[in-house]
Amino acid sequence: MEVKEIKAFGTKAAEAPLDQININRRKPTPHDVEIEILFCGVCHSDLHTARSEWGPSIYPCVPGHEIVGKVVNVGGHVSKFKVGDMVGVGCMVDSCRECQYCKEGQEQFCEPGMTGTYNSPDKNLPNNPTFGGYSESIVVDENYVLRIPDNLDPAAAAPLLCAGITTYSPLHHWKVGPGKKVGIVGIGGLGHMGIKIAKAMGAHVVAFTTSESKFAEAKRLGADEVVLSKDRAQMAAFKGKLHFILDCVSANHDINAYLALLRVDGALALVGAPEHPLPVSAFSVILGRKSFAGSMIGGIAETQDMLDFCAEKNIPADIEMIDIQQINEAYERLLKGDVKYRFVIDMASLKK
Amino acid sequence: MEVKEIKAFGTKAAEAPLDQININRRKPTPHDVEIEILFCGVCHSDLHTARSEWGPSIYPCVPGHEIVGKVVNVGGHVSKFKVGDMVGVGCMVDSCRECQYCKEGQEQFCEPGMTGTYNSPDKNLPNNPTFGGYSESIVVDENYVLRIPDNLDPAAAAPLLCAGITTYSPLHHWKVGPGKKVGIVGIGGLGHMGIKIAKAMGAHVVAFTTSESKFAEAKRLGADEVVLSKDRAQMAAFKGKLHFILDCVSANHDINAYLALLRVDGALALVGAPEHPLPVSAFSVILGRKSFAGSMIGGIAETQDMLDFCAEKNIPADIEMIDIQQINEAYERLLKGDVKYRFVIDMASLKK
Repeated sequence: MEVKEIKAFGTKAAEAPLDQININRRKPTPHDVEIEILFCGVCHSDLHTARSEWGPSIYPCVPGHEIVGKVVNVGGHVSKFKVGDMVGVGCMVDSCRECQYCKEGQEQFCEPGMTGTYNSPDKNLPNNPTFGGYSESIVVDENYVLRIPDNLDPAAAAPLLCAGITTYSPLHHWKVGPGKKVGIVGIGGLGHMGIKIAKAMGAHVVAFTTSESKFAEAKRLGADEVVLSKDRAQMAAFKGKLHFILDCVSANHDINAYLALLRVDGALALVGAPEHPLPVSAFSVILGRKSFAGSMIGGIAETQDMLDFCAEKNIPADIEMIDIQQINEAYERLLKGDVKYRFVIDMASLKK
Repeated sequence: MEVKEIKAFGTKAAEAPLDQININRRKPTPHDVEIEILFCGVCHSDLHTARSEWGPSIYPCVPGHEIVGKVVNVGGHVSKFKVGDMVGVGCMVDSCRECQYCKEGQEQFCEPGMTGTYNSPDKNLPNNPTFGGYSESIVVDENYVLRIPDNLDPAAAAPLLCAGITTYSPLHHWKVGPGKKVGIVGIGGLGHMGIKIAKAMGAHVVAFTTSESKFAEAKRLGADEVVLSKDRAQMAAFKGKLHFILDCVSANHDINAYLALLRVDGALALVGAPEHPLPVSAFSVILGRKSFAGSMIGGIAETQDMLDFCAEKNIPADIEMIDIQQINEAYERLLKGDVKYRFVIDMASLKK
């Protein structure tokens, strides 16, 4: 398969900082779209993977799965996109397309496993991992490419490809909407989108934070009420009141305290991924037939629905733009929660 | 309020064995049914409560919430039952009747709290707890009394009032039926009913046990397949295959090992109540949007549906009949799992 060498930013080892490297991209095959990357969001998964924190990664590792760019080339059989289109690529670039889940449009749950945008074996270039969006360009089958609606700012749309769909999908799946009281736990990259989307869906949104300093921010983002989660009286006031809770916290935290806030038949869906197992008390789920659930990104069609929804409701992510040369510093700030609410890399900086 | 003194079997302290005591029952008020108790099943909750293992109980404590008996007296306004009817009483004898959940027929989730058949404050006799079925008779509002269908053996029907509804309700709620593969974990008082009911609902039933000696039993009860849960290869063969798992285990066990066996969107419902919180890994629920849920008995109308279903499908509990004088010994055997599968007390023995 013909390849082209391009510039990227990645790391050769778990302990090494990210730096400029060269990688190979395949030249577009008949169903491929070649995309010049304009913006790439910085997700906590990027850091986890670069540092082999979720098991050993494949090196060199080029993270980035919140990609927005312009189509610069299309294969001969591409029908959905043309040169010049503003497009996006999220967390997956392929899947088996044959299993039940792929056929249902739930490619994220592909039985043999989806192909991640980075750190997955590359079907097209054997012995290579897939390389993510911290790079000049990417080549992706058109079926895994999203259309960025015109009225979304391309930079602020980038985080929608992961943070947006990760919160939209469970809110949609658990039927959040008018008449529903919804808790959003954690106000960060995921949580700030959770608040905006739940509010736009028509729900009554209750944000939970460990810091009183985030109250005004939570309200600005759309929360109807804000609760200081370490204040037992504030928590107790919501006992049995919430239909659904979207839990965006990646650190260890007390799930039972939140399950107590659910109504009968309520569900808490975890989208953060705490490292250690979370102790769940039997009575937390037995009393009230409650569910401790999880959710992972969303399917391709659902991701397009989310982008269209965010365009219609005018919901960009709140971003801080950085140059690619600032990525290592950005990771350190990410670890401290020092970002409102998503770093987005201006990929023009890679040309410097 | 007028009362009548009757014989019962109970305990005056967490450490004391059960012995014969006298208790007061109210005389039937206009909506009450007085029931001569013929049989009472022995549930693990009886033991937990008698011994204050779920928090301090109210003493004297008379357990028993799998009650079957004959109506011997009815209040002036009773319309649903008449003297001579074979009836049952399960885990609750009252609830607020006004909250959303009571109105929906989910009295088990009554917001102010249902009145348990034993160890709850008795609304009718202030300063008294409710006393359960280890007694000569019981007086219950007709709205909390169940009809025992004619073709069910009354003794073998007693365990349906708790073990039956506890397994029927989640199997029904999570839409178990033809085309569904369902796991039943643990083959004891609850699990043996779970297998029978899931099979009668038309599901493909996979029983999980820690003991190879239970394989033949599980098949006799209706399991299509049996898995030795400590055998990793046998467990791995069911990875991602089950639509639903009913977890009837009260001891600590590895929930993540079972969540791995669920299909996308699958749920595991816990009906046993392990003492310690169960560690659930984030990825166990995130990958496949799975749910770790719980379920608690069922509403009154649903309990009647369950009794009618068990009558129609000819599903009695498998019981071992004992005299009330053997109750302390039966508790010890219960702790060892030495019963197939439910002790039922022949309450005629209380007259001895």
